[in-house]
Amino acid sequence: MARITYVNGRYLRHGEAQVHVEDRGFQFADGVYEVMAVQGGRLIDIEEHLDRLDRSRDELSITPPMSRAALKLVIRELLRQNRITFGSIYLQVTRGQATRDFAFPHQIPPTLVITANRLKPFDFNALSKGVNVISIPDIRWKRCDIKTVSLLAGAMGKTQAKEQGAFEAWQIDGDGFVTEGTGSNAWIVTQDGTLVTRDTSTAILGGITRQTILKLAQKENLKYVERPFRLEEAKSAREAFTSASTNFIRPVVRIDDTPIANGHPGEFCLNLLKRYGKYMEEGA
Amino acid sequence: MARITYVNGRYLRHGEAQVHVEDRGFQFADGVYEVMAVQGGRLIDIEEHLDRLDRSRDELSITPPMSRAALKLVIRELLRQNRITFGSIYLQVTRGQATRDFAFPHQIPPTLVITANRLKPFDFNALSKGVNVISIPDIRWKRCDIKTVSLLAGAMGKTQAKEQGAFEAWQIDGDGFVTEGTGSNAWIVTQDGTLVTRDTSTAILGGITRQTILKLAQKENLKYVERPFRLEEAKSAREAFTSASTNFIRPVVRIDDTPIANGHPGEFCLNLLKRYGKYMEEGA
Repeated sequence: MARITYVNGRYLRHGEAQVHVEDRGFQFADGVYEVMAVQGGRLIDIEEHLDRLDRSRDELSITPPMSRAALKLVIRELLRQNRITFGSIYLQVTRGQATRDFAFPHQIPPTLVITANRLKPFDFNALSKGVNVISIPDIRWKRCDIKTVSLLAGAMGKTQAKEQGAFEAWQIDGDGFVTEGTGSNAWIVTQDGTLVTRDTSTAILGGITRQTILKLAQKENLKYVERPFRLEEAKSAREAFTSASTNFIRPVVRIDDTPIANGHPGEFCLNLLKRYGKYMEEGA
Repeated sequence: MARITYVNGRYLRHGEAQVHVEDRGFQFADGVYEVMAVQGGRLIDIEEHLDRLDRSRDELSITPPMSRAALKLVIRELLRQNRITFGSIYLQVTRGQATRDFAFPHQIPPTLVITANRLKPFDFNALSKGVNVISIPDIRWKRCDIKTVSLLAGAMGKTQAKEQGAFEAWQIDGDGFVTEGTGSNAWIVTQDGTLVTRDTSTAILGGITRQTILKLAQKENLKYVERPFRLEEAKSAREAFTSASTNFIRPVVRIDDTPIANGHPGEFCLNLLKRYGKYMEEGA
């Protein structure tokens, strides 16, 4: 069965899915995107993802490609054509195609690309294995709250992590605080059992899985606080973990050369991972 | 005559010049570029532009698409097919096409896109008219020395300038110093007649026209210094101007609401513009 990709109104064979060389997504990173998980045919947190897409678009004054209802129909149709029940949807909106000029052109049709990807179902046992992270300086721009395709710094960081046998790189701001991973939010559990993640600002992306975890923590009456934490605090924490829409929750057992606690995934994280799996099956 | 654009070994009608939706240039801004002026068929500073392209590529470990000799042949052929003697060449190299993943893929063929654009010849009278610039905070990433397509911050800044009736936006770093324009370098002439432009570092792009101007200044025994200057110093300078490969040199007569000196283009800049026009005709 041929893989099908959606581009500007057409369902194309993936190999033939193209955009113009003067698409502003290609020449200026002038576009935004979302990735959402598909579990048993359910699009996890789709409304939240589409809300964030709207916000990113609005921040850059990019025209909506279509109504939300139409967008959801296209996503469903793409999943159907690709026969995907477990996987992910990648959705990119760019400002569109225009003669190259730094300034935004007026009123051009935006570009919409959607790919569907098959992935293994959520697997508690596989996910509960610990991962290593490295720390790197955060060299990104100052509007990390907008989910743009301007991802080169993140790509460089993730490559560095991979080369050092790590799963992710946590980025450190000029004051020594962890901002976030290259494609995930960063979390710790303090020695007194408080869940900590950085508060949202222009320094990090407001993760959808991050928001869901906070909702679940509230529901379960867990102690949590949104505040910046230093790399040193993370290294001496009781637990650490990462969250992302298609990587879910991953216990962090080592940061740089420092094992976290006894170097094994902790109770808090494993319980949360189980709870998140249940959330994806049944909702909050 | 149809406009022709080069994409990965093929000379295509411009309207059909496309790249795959999973080109890393489109999904990650994982690519570099150059723009060079064409004056009377001469490619101005082509060796310097291709040197900088090599450096940008090397910093990101992107494979060279072809030898320099081959690249120059393609550029010449593209100019010939488009019958351009005055204009510009835009050349973009991306890491290539790969299944979406933040980490760099191993050993994939890079993407090479080249467009040729017709422009009016260098015109001293038109260029010697003064332009306005605005100042904006520099929100870009920390590797502005690499000429990547991660240009969203610059596009936002240039749009803001245009909306305010200005030609360019000068970006101001956290310490109040001018870094550079969104697509140009920034210069002032102090009250004692010294030419000043910011020294190269990871905070600015090492402009080719910037380098040529410094060479010409040296040749002409002009006083010059490379150092950061504050926005306030620029506003009270004797002259100010911008430089870029296809916009050449433009006298700045107003920064925000402040006229520079008497609000008219100054002698230093106009002499330099004349000298630069001569340089493009005859070389140094």
